[in-house]
Amino acid sequence: MNYDVKDITLTNQGKQSIEWASQQMPVLNIIKERFKKEQPFKGKRISCCLHVTAKTANLVITLKAGGADVVLCASNPLSTQDDVAASLVKDYGIPVYAIKGENDDTYYKHLITAIKHNPNIIVDDGCDLVSNLHKNYADTYLKDVLGGSEETTTGVVRLKNMEKDNALKFPMIAVNDSDTKHLFDNRYGTGQSTLDGIIRATNILIAGKTFVVIGFGHCGRGLASRAKGMGANVVVTEVNHVKAIEANLEGYRVMKLEDAMPEADFVCTVTGNLNVVDKKHFELAKDGCVICNSGHFNTEINVKALEEMSVLKTTVKEFVDEYILPSGKRIYVLGEGRLVNLACGEGHPPLVMDMSFANQALASEYIVKNYKDLVNGVYTLPEEIDYGIAKLKLETMGIEIDTLTDEQFEYLDSWESGT
Amino acid sequence: MNYDVKDITLTNQGKQSIEWASQQMPVLNIIKERFKKEQPFKGKRISCCLHVTAKTANLVITLKAGGADVVLCASNPLSTQDDVAASLVKDYGIPVYAIKGENDDTYYKHLITAIKHNPNIIVDDGCDLVSNLHKNYADTYLKDVLGGSEETTTGVVRLKNMEKDNALKFPMIAVNDSDTKHLFDNRYGTGQSTLDGIIRATNILIAGKTFVVIGFGHCGRGLASRAKGMGANVVVTEVNHVKAIEANLEGYRVMKLEDAMPEADFVCTVTGNLNVVDKKHFELAKDGCVICNSGHFNTEINVKALEEMSVLKTTVKEFVDEYILPSGKRIYVLGEGRLVNLACGEGHPPLVMDMSFANQALASEYIVKNYKDLVNGVYTLPEEIDYGIAKLKLETMGIEIDTLTDEQFEYLDSWESGT
Amino acid sequence: MNYDVKDITLTNQGKQSIEWASQQMPVLNIIKERFKKEQPFKGKRISCCLHVTAKTANLVITLKAGGADVVLCASNPLSTQDDVAASLVKDYGIPVYAIKGENDDTYYKHLITAIKHNPNIIVDDGCDLVSNLHKNYADTYLKDVLGGSEETTTGVVRLKNMEKDNALKFPMIAVNDSDTKHLFDNRYGTGQSTLDGIIRATNILIAGKTFVVIGFGHCGRGLASRAKGMGANVVVTEVNHVKAIEANLEGYRVMKLEDAMPEADFVCTVTGNLNVVDKKHFELAKDGCVICNSGHFNTEINVKALEEMSVLKTTVKEFVDEYILPSGKRIYVLGEGRLVNLACGEGHPPLVMDMSFANQALASEYIVKNYKDLVNGVYTLPEEIDYGIAKLKLETMGIEIDTLTDEQFEYLDSWESGT
Amino acid sequence: MNYDVKDITLTNQGKQSIEWASQQMPVLNIIKERFKKEQPFKGKRISCCLHVTAKTANLVITLKAGGADVVLCASNPLSTQDDVAASLVKDYGIPVYAIKGENDDTYYKHLITAIKHNPNIIVDDGCDLVSNLHKNYADTYLKDVLGGSEETTTGVVRLKNMEKDNALKFPMIAVNDSDTKHLFDNRYGTGQSTLDGIIRATNILIAGKTFVVIGFGHCGRGLASRAKGMGANVVVTEVNHVKAIEANLEGYRVMKLEDAMPEADFVCTVTGNLNVVDKKHFELAKDGCVICNSGHFNTEINVKALEEMSVLKTTVKEFVDEYILPSGKRIYVLGEGRLVNLACGEGHPPLVMDMSFANQALASEYIVKNYKDLVNGVYTLPEEIDYGIAKLKLETMGIEIDTLTDEQFEYLDSWESGT
Repeated sequence: MNYDVKDITLTNQGKQSIEWASQQMPVLNIIKERFKKEQPFKGKRISCCLHVTAKTANLVITLKAGGADVVLCASNPLSTQDDVAASLVKDYGIPVYAIKGENDDTYYKHLITAIKHNPNIIVDDGCDLVSNLHKNYADTYLKDVLGGSEETTTGVVRLKNMEKDNALKFPMIAVNDSDTKHLFDNRYGTGQSTLDGIIRATNILIAGKTFVVIGFGHCGRGLASRAKGMGANVVVTEVNHVKAIEANLEGYRVMKLEDAMPEADFVCTVTGNLNVVDKKHFELAKDGCVICNSGHFNTEINVKALEEMSVLKTTVKEFVDEYILPSGKRIYVLGEGRLVNLACGEGHPPLVMDMSFANQALASEYIVKNYKDLVNGVYTLPEEIDYGIAKLKLETMGIEIDTLTDEQFEYLDSWESGT
Repeated sequence: MNYDVKDITLTNQGKQSIEWASQQMPVLNIIKERFKKEQPFKGKRISCCLHVTAKTANLVITLKAGGADVVLCASNPLSTQDDVAASLVKDYGIPVYAIKGENDDTYYKHLITAIKHNPNIIVDDGCDLVSNLHKNYADTYLKDVLGGSEETTTGVVRLKNMEKDNALKFPMIAVNDSDTKHLFDNRYGTGQSTLDGIIRATNILIAGKTFVVIGFGHCGRGLASRAKGMGANVVVTEVNHVKAIEANLEGYRVMKLEDAMPEADFVCTVTGNLNVVDKKHFELAKDGCVICNSGHFNTEINVKALEEMSVLKTTVKEFVDEYILPSGKRIYVLGEGRLVNLACGEGHPPLVMDMSFANQALASEYIVKNYKDLVNGVYTLPEEIDYGIAKLKLETMGIEIDTLTDEQFEYLDSWESGT
Repeated sequence: MNYDVKDITLTNQGKQSIEWASQQMPVLNIIKERFKKEQPFKGKRISCCLHVTAKTANLVITLKAGGADVVLCASNPLSTQDDVAASLVKDYGIPVYAIKGENDDTYYKHLITAIKHNPNIIVDDGCDLVSNLHKNYADTYLKDVLGGSEETTTGVVRLKNMEKDNALKFPMIAVNDSDTKHLFDNRYGTGQSTLDGIIRATNILIAGKTFVVIGFGHCGRGLASRAKGMGANVVVTEVNHVKAIEANLEGYRVMKLEDAMPEADFVCTVTGNLNVVDKKHFELAKDGCVICNSGHFNTEINVKALEEMSVLKTTVKEFVDEYILPSGKRIYVLGEGRLVNLACGEGHPPLVMDMSFANQALASEYIVKNYKDLVNGVYTLPEEIDYGIAKLKLETMGIEIDTLTDEQFEYLDSWESGT
Repeated sequence: MNYDVKDITLTNQGKQSIEWASQQMPVLNIIKERFKKEQPFKGKRISCCLHVTAKTANLVITLKAGGADVVLCASNPLSTQDDVAASLVKDYGIPVYAIKGENDDTYYKHLITAIKHNPNIIVDDGCDLVSNLHKNYADTYLKDVLGGSEETTTGVVRLKNMEKDNALKFPMIAVNDSDTKHLFDNRYGTGQSTLDGIIRATNILIAGKTFVVIGFGHCGRGLASRAKGMGANVVVTEVNHVKAIEANLEGYRVMKLEDAMPEADFVCTVTGNLNVVDKKHFELAKDGCVICNSGHFNTEINVKALEEMSVLKTTVKEFVDEYILPSGKRIYVLGEGRLVNLACGEGHPPLVMDMSFANQALASEYIVKNYKDLVNGVYTLPEEIDYGIAKLKLETMGIEIDTLTDEQFEYLDSWESGT
């Protein structure tokens, strides 16, 4: 078996991580057990392009358990856990092409290896595999592809542009559109893991601090709620008026960032936008302010501007850079402005990714079963699959809920028909 | 001027109520001031069919200030505040046809009076006026109608059925679809007013009680959050698996209602469904359990079944009926299972209705300005009007928020185009 | 039987109130049942000087059930519920001397009637009965007094001064010192009932408002917690540095009142001090600010100063006085600055007074059983009685808790002895 | 200079830690600056026996800044941060005798070195230094001791026993008795750091989990509040009835541990007692239950009993031991039942120790200034020092609070004197 990982001897630690994560992913495990029996992917090749972590490892293992001939390459040069990669190869017999910190050449070499696997199904995260396949290998490797699935919002945006231009040559399922995906990992995963990253990096008491959350989308709501829960006084900034009112009615103070900076102890961006904390904000910051980002890209804090403004930059602690402004004021940036929950912590808890990856696994199965009925384009997983995941999840949580009686169904029907 | 109200001498108290509510409705007031200047409804007749309360009074006054020749009839035989009705007639010169507790004959007589006003615009709540006009007065009174707006979900369902059958003969705006309407009054209004109704009726300490919220839609979320905020231990029941998981991740216990009943101190329904608390649940209830409803209709608690099961029913306190089961167990039902926030309290705070009624006022203006471009059917108010209300609201709250820079606009654009 | 109440025909309503309260006072009921059997007060006269409400009614009924010959007079000229007074006389055969709004002459006449009952035991609230008896009737009515109990902090302060001067001629039990009294009614009773009073008076949405709590004692903590729970953004002001830090670490903003006034939507005093909201604060207030008090005396808001500053004062709604300052700014004072939970609501829920009055009932029994061993002075109820009440309370709540094992007792002992 | 540390080359990392902690300890820094000027300890020898961490390092540096000739030994063989020890020696010139993991012989050898420093003042944590000095070196090294201070509850218990037996030969200040100590570090430090330790060890999503807090003292309250704030459904178990009612009124479920175990996802002990989670509880546990301790000693979980019951014990992850019971059920114990916030995290944030160590520093100064007036025994730091720390703390937090007016002082006085 071919593979390319950093250190194949790291298997023990990697296996431990994979198994610990597995315990927190009971829905995926149920699907894996069913796949073992039903072998939906028998004779099928699957190419996965994913963050190579203990959590995605369980997804890939699940696909293989379903009979697939799987390969895995990294969807990001920095997010690979090398021990997990090693264990996947050695303990689970899955060819992995991923090395943490690999350069662009290696990154693309790995991606191409996954393309050359000549997949029937593609599991993508960010659309790099799908895009590259279309651009450079359409002649050779398009022909056997039945379809695929995409994890991220960004990837889906790229796919929809391809669809609009009639450039997409097979059906792709936008996993992010499932309720059991987007309603959960952003709100509950980001909330906990961002606080965790900040506390690991700084060990500062959150209680009593003024904590500014920039952006009140799903991530921002989760983060604001957890910061409040740890005793912070939370301020929200927003550019959307409706969300601003919502934030206010949730009990948070809402203001312009420049008005918040002079009293902010912590500032965390979750907007998906550019230079949200910028020169003028650094100037207004309180001495000792800690600034970090929990949005996907490291564009939200204008670290470059900060660096130019500063008379001194020192790494005072792992993940903590101190910038001293000419006035003597100190500003701390965590993890260089990258995703603080991944840079300084372990990212989302597996439990919250369980439903997300169940969607991925079932999307692959859906492709195999339905590709003949699908045209080239972007699909949402059918509601019965989405809700089926929710049902499994509740069962694994040991929670039983009520069901509607016939009488109640009729009542709702009659009411909705206006009679 | 003709009118039909219970007691025209109640004007003083009614005026006080209208003015107090007015203070909590600054957005509507701003619109009123603009209407005064611009007179958008000059020469136009408007028929309003609304709950006749201090809050809607301010809407009707706003329409009149805009130059309209307005009449108002009740949208429900029980919700009229007779003092408000009197003041609208005497102090504001608005013909009102509404008497609290009027019988069906009077109710329809009043409705017909509003139809015979021969309106250009209709402001409806529940679709009774629009429906009746189409059914019985289409020949005479349809011709001058330019369009209208509808407040409730129920009304919109009826309108959409009419639209589907090509029976709707003018454009109607579904105000409930505006973000500034549906995101706020259900969550924040219901939360506070339901607790208020329960406390007024019972004066029981909420802290430490097991409080069961049935239904985790917008209303249920608001209620659960406020009950928790008052110190209750909240249990949520749901029939929808995704919402059940959300409730769990918000920290509530989630279970079947029959499992919750033996420990429930309070049970409140907010589902919109039928017999949600039924015979089998009463049987399982804890002695002393207090049951109430905060959904729109009084169908959610099967009070009739409870009555049949009971050996004794006594009104032990205003709004509190005690039912004694053969076992000797006591169950308390508040406000006969009607909306507890209205039956035992004062309903939603005006502040939360400010945006809802701003939508109504601007919907009427939108009809006047755009009716020529609208076909018969159900419309949503344009986003710029919806967001314009949010903007005004923030201003009246004294809150300033950030705006996107050009650079940020470009960034978002470029990102969304996938480049 | 002699008595002096306002209207003896109000018994029905009074009985309903007493019985509804009784249901929320299970511990007192258990004590009442035991008293019925054991008759601890057989042949004893008890004079009670208490707020005459549905809650205290249950205490007096309990004492009578224990065999006592009880009379009841008001401890405050304004707090009497006349219907409760009537029912106590007619339905329970207890002589009551209390009329809501009675003048000072009548108040003292009633007090003296209670003294002339020649009590063996005194149940006092504010120390007026004990004080008057010592001052004016020591010769005649001291001789049969075995002792008594006092409910309030204020009363205890007066008693301790008497004790210090050797003026106290019998043992008095300071019920407020019991854990089951002071840890609960202030925190949990005040929290809920103050919010309730404010919402009843104003029907303003609490969510999103800046709510200033002045004073972070037990009452202030309870209030701050509940206001936050209803969605307010809470600011705390304090004069004590330690409490100020606690408030900050609980996530509240802490500042000087003059800095808080310009953004305060609600201001509520719970300090026990004088003119806490004064001229300079009114001047700084935001237009529309609602000010109220939940401390015992109506001295905390300097209403007189506000009146002098204002160009107009109007009662715009029951319990809501509007003051217009020369600048045009409007300030609203609720319930004339009296206790907002009593002035605009129903006071503490009975459930929270259950333990307080259980302490009173058991204090009377303790006096009867132990008066021979007590010298003249102020006592705390023994811990086993205090904790016995907590135990009963838990039982009535249906809560079982763990008990220490012998091994654990030994461990704690050994550890505390330092070995 | 003599010293005994593990690796003197670790200074860089140690200095970074000390300086980062220093930034979070502004009160101690203010005291250090004053000490630098006033030199209160000039010519005095101080022996410190403390956990050798970045936080205590700042205390020792403060004492030295005040002119003291300080030495430092470890108060626990396991808690030393070797890099901090190295930096204290090299960068700050303070002789340290402490090596992480040192055996008992070395531990006592180090302790004796500190005794032989012949101290004028002792700063102790756990009373080992004071006790050993009295027992074994009374003849030689008692004579110059002016007094000292003790940090922990345990240490104070030992001192009070010595005092009772007239065995204590100098005055000792019980720092734990200061409000600015005991009101803060237990509640706010333990809450955050315990959650932090659990999340680092497990990366399990807290939201939606049933989290059992055993013990509702200061630590338990802090922990329950933070667990709730992270979205858990919190259950409290208690042996004290009053605390059990408090926990219930705070909205937590209260039950016996054996009833809680079958639904507990997390169990954390904070009782100070023995075998609080014992054989019978393990038997009732839910599969996958995570158990940890945040009380001082590792006696609260009966790990030995669990080991005996288990068919297999595996360390599945750093700090996480898996025990498999004969039934196949898995139980996870974190950090071997030791303090989870120290074993799996970094312990209390420096910010919360700032006031605690300010008390220690000022206790030493108090001894120097007042030893002539003190007899041998255990003292509490005067209120003005305690409150002075609170005042400094507020200043460093940038918080201004109100002060009483003369009129208000008089009012309080008059009221308290009962007139």
